[in-house]
Amino acid sequence: MAEPIYFYFDFSSPYGYLTSQRIEAVAADLGRELVWKPMMLGATFKATGAAPLTEVPMKGDYSRHDMARSARQHDIPYVVPEKFPFASISACRAVYWAQDAHPDKATALIHALMQAAWQRGEDISGAPAVVAIAAGIGLDADEVEAALKDQAVKDKLRQEIDASIAGKVFGSPFMRVDGEDFWGNDRLDTMAEWVRRGGW
Amino acid sequence: MAEPIYFYFDFSSPYGYLTSQRIEAVAADLGRELVWKPMMLGATFKATGAAPLTEVPMKGDYSRHDMARSARQHDIPYVVPEKFPFASISACRAVYWAQDAHPDKATALIHALMQAAWQRGEDISGAPAVVAIAAGIGLDADEVEAALKDQAVKDKLRQEIDASIAGKVFGSPFMRVDGEDFWGNDRLDTMAEWVRRGGW
Repeated sequence: MAEPIYFYFDFSSPYGYLTSQRIEAVAADLGRELVWKPMMLGATFKATGAAPLTEVPMKGDYSRHDMARSARQHDIPYVVPEKFPFASISACRAVYWAQDAHPDKATALIHALMQAAWQRGEDISGAPAVVAIAAGIGLDADEVEAALKDQAVKDKLRQEIDASIAGKVFGSPFMRVDGEDFWGNDRLDTMAEWVRRGGW
Repeated sequence: MAEPIYFYFDFSSPYGYLTSQRIEAVAADLGRELVWKPMMLGATFKATGAAPLTEVPMKGDYSRHDMARSARQHDIPYVVPEKFPFASISACRAVYWAQDAHPDKATALIHALMQAAWQRGEDISGAPAVVAIAAGIGLDADEVEAALKDQAVKDKLRQEIDASIAGKVFGSPFMRVDGEDFWGNDRLDTMAEWVRRGGW
């Protein structure tokens, strides 16, 4: 059985959002399972000493322009949330909980969260927002609310974040397949070519 | 008359080298003039607070791997010079002098310098190495040696570097065409598509 594609992303990462809009079709085309791995760049940046792209002089202006341009290139709706960058801890917890408790709804939850932030510009940083979005795709609001406070769910996210850092995932989006890493929305096609050619 | 493509690069930048091996064909295909603009990332990094990619934790290992992988993807010979990153001030001065004094040899000089560093792994940081490489493509060694010490040539490079920073060129490779900026070797094809489609 071919290895899955592991897709690491931060909900607060514009390029992570852009990749999330195209990677399912790419994975399906390649005949690979897709494993969604939300993470938090803040924790990663502590490990690497990096700063958020949009806060770097010059590079910030360029990247804001390039994010919108990259969206238009692939006809992807794109709105920058008023609150950006934003904390994605509740969104991450909800996803890891759903992947375990309601695996059939986990990917729909990711898309609903991404669409709220990057297509409608909503603030999804708070637990109530995440609960409402989860309820919108048919999850039980009370169950989600309880899950977000559950220590086991908190621990699960912490483990996932620690594992991503230990595994040298340093950015978003970040794709790993067949032991090969690809960083950046502009490497999605390169990743696909790599899998198709079996490397080079 | 269509605007040229301005191509900014540091001789010490692996991705700059990779782009230099493909951008002439891309520009020719687009029917655009290509203007080669060597610069020095060290000066740029002072302005942005950025660090050399290969010195960032995690990102360093990834980028070293990715540089070689990007070269193989396009069948470009690629050797990391023993001395890397290296000072490119003499190489830059020689190129700006040649663009003025011997424009017919300036691009050949760029390629000869790039090949020495990135295909044979030579140390091109010193003035004598640059003089020898320039002589190898038919420039007069004494004339090059004198040019590298010429205050007017030094001033020219300083002006070019200052202009690139003032113009918000923050990385290598960096391409500007029709007022649109593209940063990174993996954006060469995006730049070409942008010109072909007249933007999007």
